[in-house]
Amino acid sequence: MRPVVVIGVGMHRFGKFLDTSLKELVRVAVWNAINDAGIDPRSIEAAYVGSSMVGLMTGQEAVRGQVVLRYAGFGGIPITNVENACASSSTAFRDAFIAVGAGVHDVVLAVGMEKLYANDLAKSLQALGSASDVEGEGGLGLQFSAVYAMLLRRMMAEHDWTVEDFARVVVKNSYNGSLNPYAQFQKPLPLEKVLSGPVVADPLTLYMVSPLGDGAAAAIICAEEWARRQGCAGLVRVRASAMRSGSWRPYDYQGPTTSALTAQEAYRQAGVGPEDIDVAEVHDAMAPAELKCYEDLGFCAPGESAQLIRKGKTNLDGAIPVNTSGGLAARGHPVGATGLGQIAEIVWQLRGQAGQRQVRRKGGDWPRLGLAHNEGGFVDGDVGISVIHILERVG
Amino acid sequence: MRPVVVIGVGMHRFGKFLDTSLKELVRVAVWNAINDAGIDPRSIEAAYVGSSMVGLMTGQEAVRGQVVLRYAGFGGIPITNVENACASSSTAFRDAFIAVGAGVHDVVLAVGMEKLYANDLAKSLQALGSASDVEGEGGLGLQFSAVYAMLLRRMMAEHDWTVEDFARVVVKNSYNGSLNPYAQFQKPLPLEKVLSGPVVADPLTLYMVSPLGDGAAAAIICAEEWARRQGCAGLVRVRASAMRSGSWRPYDYQGPTTSALTAQEAYRQAGVGPEDIDVAEVHDAMAPAELKCYEDLGFCAPGESAQLIRKGKTNLDGAIPVNTSGGLAARGHPVGATGLGQIAEIVWQLRGQAGQRQVRRKGGDWPRLGLAHNEGGFVDGDVGISVIHILERVG
Repeated sequence: MRPVVVIGVGMHRFGKFLDTSLKELVRVAVWNAINDAGIDPRSIEAAYVGSSMVGLMTGQEAVRGQVVLRYAGFGGIPITNVENACASSSTAFRDAFIAVGAGVHDVVLAVGMEKLYANDLAKSLQALGSASDVEGEGGLGLQFSAVYAMLLRRMMAEHDWTVEDFARVVVKNSYNGSLNPYAQFQKPLPLEKVLSGPVVADPLTLYMVSPLGDGAAAAIICAEEWARRQGCAGLVRVRASAMRSGSWRPYDYQGPTTSALTAQEAYRQAGVGPEDIDVAEVHDAMAPAELKCYEDLGFCAPGESAQLIRKGKTNLDGAIPVNTSGGLAARGHPVGATGLGQIAEIVWQLRGQAGQRQVRRKGGDWPRLGLAHNEGGFVDGDVGISVIHILERVG
Repeated sequence: MRPVVVIGVGMHRFGKFLDTSLKELVRVAVWNAINDAGIDPRSIEAAYVGSSMVGLMTGQEAVRGQVVLRYAGFGGIPITNVENACASSSTAFRDAFIAVGAGVHDVVLAVGMEKLYANDLAKSLQALGSASDVEGEGGLGLQFSAVYAMLLRRMMAEHDWTVEDFARVVVKNSYNGSLNPYAQFQKPLPLEKVLSGPVVADPLTLYMVSPLGDGAAAAIICAEEWARRQGCAGLVRVRASAMRSGSWRPYDYQGPTTSALTAQEAYRQAGVGPEDIDVAEVHDAMAPAELKCYEDLGFCAPGESAQLIRKGKTNLDGAIPVNTSGGLAARGHPVGATGLGQIAEIVWQLRGQAGQRQVRRKGGDWPRLGLAHNEGGFVDGDVGISVIHILERVG
């Protein structure tokens, strides 16, 4: 495959936008990405549109991408709708990357979108439940917070994790979110408040759980040679795109997780190791999951993740800042938009455009290598899909 | 891109299978394809799963592919869910083609699936309606038969098409379907019966309209070099994969249609013309649409499509046999499975495995070049997406 770069990213703020249509959310994100790239929109040759629960939430089950992109001004190009639960738009990004890398297209638009708020909470929860086997977990009415809570209880028995550690993740991420104008929640939460929040599913309190959300995010992906010919600035190269569905994990949960295996593949593709990553967005659908991500992604040795959060090593000024955007709990988690929200944050960080939450390497440089980790669904006791991208600033 | 071939195809018969789960439909189609390819299933490195209305019909909105493929025995590979209305699985086939062509994977599984029959007809019709803008046509409660009927009335005013011509398409395709063990309807319909059928939306009678359907279809796609190394037989190369969404067509419906533009692109990619095509599957969601396809695909000059059907030129023994499978009305149209059903038929025809409906070229040879044309959805007065593949027998 030929070198592929991201030349533009854009978002509509994540949050509760009952009065804003999905079409309008997407229009804002797409045109922000186009303006960021500074290209003629007629250069865009194809689009991959990721979303997950739009059918159940809005009734627009089919041709969702065609309908929203028509409103945004696009027609006559190949448009493909992609679904992979919470990893829908990192999957769309991956498809765009492959199509450009293969030489099928020079410039491709990747979109993520979701509208989860409804006039009826049951509708939203039922839609979210469809990200597991509806004949299995989904059919039991188990919300994801309950699934996570059960896994966490098991992990707490094997790790030195405490509920305070979980709360520390929220303290860090809510602070980061307070510096992010696109975040759903922009208020730092003190440790005591997180710990004393209403219990959703023990040990999870309200503030540890990602909220419902509406939102959209977009990226413009193109051949590096095309971008250089056009004189685009701030190029970010896609160094790795790894994806893996869950497999039959032994019920003792020993051995590498699906995300750990996906990370190994991503590092292999990029020819780098976890020690080379300068900034990361990870899938903390429930805050404590961030601790597991530290180990899966190799940011610490197995069993040392609590030390990372206690010592502040994943803070904005730490050795490996994680979820600088605020993560899923603070930036928000409109399922199908989350993956590209992560990509947008990494691109901003690599370009030095992250404002007050900008990360700097030793010596003051902006980060060079960023990683985005996105997971989707829960099937037969394992994650449905794990997707990891590694991005590098190249100009 | 490197050369890509199809080495295996499989189907579950299309039809009404209220007692059969989506998982079981897919299991049958996938393992038929694997057995057809004669490969070790562990060779499969990734899967793209096309479906459209599964969320509304079964509640399994998210991670559909992961859930059904887990049941079929797959885990640990990248799985991507693809939606493009009636063209969902030709889109999945295209994605698999691009991933293999790019060198990301050597062997990829493409799946199409749908379960449209329910215990409540309204549910099925509402799901189908979601293939147009639910704030526009879909929201009006316009079924696709009504949309087609209005377009046809306009076309009848400009063409020499008669209702008898529409019925002739059904007579041909129902005969073809009667020779296809995978077809939903396997009974030839005489002209009088078609004409005297209940009127669904004038000028369409019942037999001109594709039925609700359940079904699944699958294909194994791989690098040609991999297939030759494995000694696979009956290779069918993907010569073209063209896709285009609808655009703002002038309301006088003049100028080339979206499918005509897609066909031009497909012929350009393959370096062939319509005169080189030996057999074709086209998107006759309503039988009269087949006449329009003749023109869009260049099988006749504009205005001459009625002559083609009247003279039997698209019959099994005609100059350009069309819808040898029975097409959407006879083979059936389980929306997300249709595209790969078309691909399977073309592969069987090119390999000389189409049984009693086998097409032969002058001199008795099997066809060499086949075309599959698939459309999806209806957005803002135009088709949502058009996808055309050209396949060639190469070994």
